Amino acid sequence: MKKTVLIFGLLMANVLAAQEIPLNAKEVIKSFYTEALGEQQGYQWLHHLCTEIGPRPSGSEAANEAARWAQLEMLQAGADTAWLQPVEVPKWHRGAEWSKVISKGVTTVLPTTALGGSVPTPLEGILAEVVEVDSFEELERLGRAGIEGKIVFYNTYMDHAMISTFNAYGGAVKYRWAGAMEAVKHGAVATVMRSVTLLRDDLPHTGAMSYGDSEQKIPTAAISWQAADKLSQMISSDPTAQLHLYLDCGVQGTAINYNVVADFNGSVKPDEIMLVGGHIDSWDLGQGAQDDGAGCVHAMQVPSLMRQVGYQNKRTIRVVLWANEEFGLDGAKEYARWAREQDVHHWVAMESDGGGDVPRGFGIGADEARVKMVRGFKELLSPYGINVLAKGGGGADLGPLRGHDDFFIGFRPESQRYFDFHHSARDNIDAIHPRSLEMGAASMTALYYLLDNNEDE
Amino acid sequence: MKKTVLIFGLLMANVLAAQEIPLNAKEVIKSFYTEALGEQQGYQWLHHLCTEIGPRPSGSEAANEAARWAQLEMLQAGADTAWLQPVEVPKWHRGAEWSKVISKGVTTVLPTTALGGSVPTPLEGILAEVVEVDSFEELERLGRAGIEGKIVFYNTYMDHAMISTFNAYGGAVKYRWAGAMEAVKHGAVATVMRSVTLLRDDLPHTGAMSYGDSEQKIPTAAISWQAADKLSQMISSDPTAQLHLYLDCGVQGTAINYNVVADFNGSVKPDEIMLVGGHIDSWDLGQGAQDDGAGCVHAMQVPSLMRQVGYQNKRTIRVVLWANEEFGLDGAKEYARWAREQDVHHWVAMESDGGGDVPRGFGIGADEARVKMVRGFKELLSPYGINVLAKGGGGADLGPLRGHDDFFIGFRPESQRYFDFHHSARDNIDAIHPRSLEMGAASMTALYYLLDNNEDE
Repeated sequence: MKKTVLIFGLLMANVLAAQEIPLNAKEVIKSFYTEALGEQQGYQWLHHLCTEIGPRPSGSEAANEAARWAQLEMLQAGADTAWLQPVEVPKWHRGAEWSKVISKGVTTVLPTTALGGSVPTPLEGILAEVVEVDSFEELERLGRAGIEGKIVFYNTYMDHAMISTFNAYGGAVKYRWAGAMEAVKHGAVATVMRSVTLLRDDLPHTGAMSYGDSEQKIPTAAISWQAADKLSQMISSDPTAQLHLYLDCGVQGTAINYNVVADFNGSVKPDEIMLVGGHIDSWDLGQGAQDDGAGCVHAMQVPSLMRQVGYQNKRTIRVVLWANEEFGLDGAKEYARWAREQDVHHWVAMESDGGGDVPRGFGIGADEARVKMVRGFKELLSPYGINVLAKGGGGADLGPLRGHDDFFIGFRPESQRYFDFHHSARDNIDAIHPRSLEMGAASMTALYYLLDNNEDE
Repeated sequence: MKKTVLIFGLLMANVLAAQEIPLNAKEVIKSFYTEALGEQQGYQWLHHLCTEIGPRPSGSEAANEAARWAQLEMLQAGADTAWLQPVEVPKWHRGAEWSKVISKGVTTVLPTTALGGSVPTPLEGILAEVVEVDSFEELERLGRAGIEGKIVFYNTYMDHAMISTFNAYGGAVKYRWAGAMEAVKHGAVATVMRSVTLLRDDLPHTGAMSYGDSEQKIPTAAISWQAADKLSQMISSDPTAQLHLYLDCGVQGTAINYNVVADFNGSVKPDEIMLVGGHIDSWDLGQGAQDDGAGCVHAMQVPSLMRQVGYQNKRTIRVVLWANEEFGLDGAKEYARWAREQDVHHWVAMESDGGGDVPRGFGIGADEARVKMVRGFKELLSPYGINVLAKGGGGADLGPLRGHDDFFIGFRPESQRYFDFHHSARDNIDAIHPRSLEMGAASMTALYYLLDNNEDE
């Protein structure tokens, strides 16, 4: 498998960078898929992570249990070293939470969840009239006269017409992140929002919010899609309808969680590190199967599949599972701080944090030459559904390495279903399709195998 | 929207055929997706078909109810004509069905379903030892000495390593189709098989079988994946283990079902027909959501989406929903017989019978010039995940038109999940992801819009 041949622009007309592609690359790549789809090791790992360990929110003991489990699995898979890097993280607490509308003498319960970072309500909850807005612009127009003393209801949507649901998420998530800090400027007493999802169902979706530099912190929650429809109808027909919101939640100091760092040493260039990672934490409502258990087992499978088919990596494959992505990127920041301090560089770094659906492609955050180098692999990857090799990419946990390293890759699975599950009680093992998950792992392994056989230009 | 410009090979270097692409094609195509993803008309139709009408097996009254419903929906969507074409079909009956293994004094029930077309067992069932084979070759090797008086167990698999699950299906389905007729040659008294699926679950999957010209017809059934694992283990540890199989099923004469034929007349070339279809029947175990309710609503949406965005088709769009694909292609044969008799030709004919997952591409069964013409649309379709425009295609229900017409297209959605549901009690509305379904409909509409604006070379 080690015999290679130098090919200049043979695969595609637009390949500018020199490429070393092993003679039997097609067969080796096929073997990754055959192994992954047959053994389904990644799905078995994910099943354990989801059903035996469960939700892994910031500061939880479950996050540490998951880190220790992954460390052991990596050692059993043949890692030369696997260690846990302590990270100080906020300890997130969620207790009881509910809301109900009182209108025309009838009380209607709305499926409700506190946004991550929200302060609690008083013990008696908050009872107030509701003012609905569709944007920050409408909030500004209403001003203090329309807002003060009320609960602001952000009836905002992901854009259903966007084909990339991640782009649609990017457009809608600002109301989750900044809704409270904007509303409080006008005297709001709390905020609720339509959950950031495209599925028209009845489960609320949480996610991080920020108070920015607000002096006053107001409770903030998400309600389900169907609850948002109901609430909008009710306050439209009865502007004096009141919402009663109760949230027992909040940040309770800090705790120690851990990054997992497992090295599978390279046989030729052990000092050139190919990082592959996902984040081991999850939100607390579900098992974190799609977000980001899938990314963790994807990363764990890359060196494991190489070993299983008998391929010896030339460069060092480093699996990193970051602590607390969801609630402040603490793990990624600590790992990057350490890498800078130790002068550890990564020849390439790849992240999987888009879920476990079938592979569609990769985003490549690198200079033109490396983008073209990766695009030169397209003919070898397209039989597996990899059709998009886009410029620009990486992921949230790679962000802190920017400026320190210069070659980032983000795995891009099919995105249509992702926000059905995202940050909700639906993000459980049954959100995962075993074959689709395994195809993602094999695709990431195939790309790393090709890169491992490539000279840096 | 009607202003067009003649472009020669402008979009891609390899476009040989002349193409007329409307100036605002990008915008019109985008509008199909926006409309489909917003209104989700196809999903609403499919929800009705699945939950209000339900399973639609050959010869059932439900198949006729579905045909009448689709006829009305097409008229309401603006069809100029919509009629029902009678088709004589076998009337399939399924009653109680079960099997159990008796080994070492313990009885173990196996999830079991009769294959479509199987004769029933006697009232007391069939009790016999089991002989496991992994192929027709092994069946031959064992011969009469090893088979006579026994139940043959085809412990055969779809090839998990194949990336196209439809190809894997093609390799495995021969044991379903011909298992009984081959086993009876060696004196088998019945056959059971591992269900033709890739999901390692506990539901059996049915599907058509044939006795060929066998004089003697033996009962034949499928058992679930997990039951096949159990049965194999049990007869391996106890070769005298017996299987008790009971099937109340069979073909009970014939009945009349209907093809639905709905025309949306073209404004410029009404005599040039662009057929788009799916099959209205389903197997009886589930609601036929993926197979082929999805294809039916895909087809129904093509003219409907055009009308909804204000596009007037130049050629006639004909929606055809065929009766009884599953159990003999009777509807497709009758439609093709009629077309030949009436000298009705189709400028192009497209079928959707691969389920409702996200679009991946189309297969084009046509001469080289038309394949290249369609490939010339790739740049316009790839933003929506259409990356494969493969040579060769169409589908089972277009088969009878071959030799009569010469331009066939098969819609190709993502295939990884399809056989999880196929022909099983799992093929219900919750097998369908609304956005993915709608993206398929919009993709088919986009391609037909582009073809509608194309001159025949």
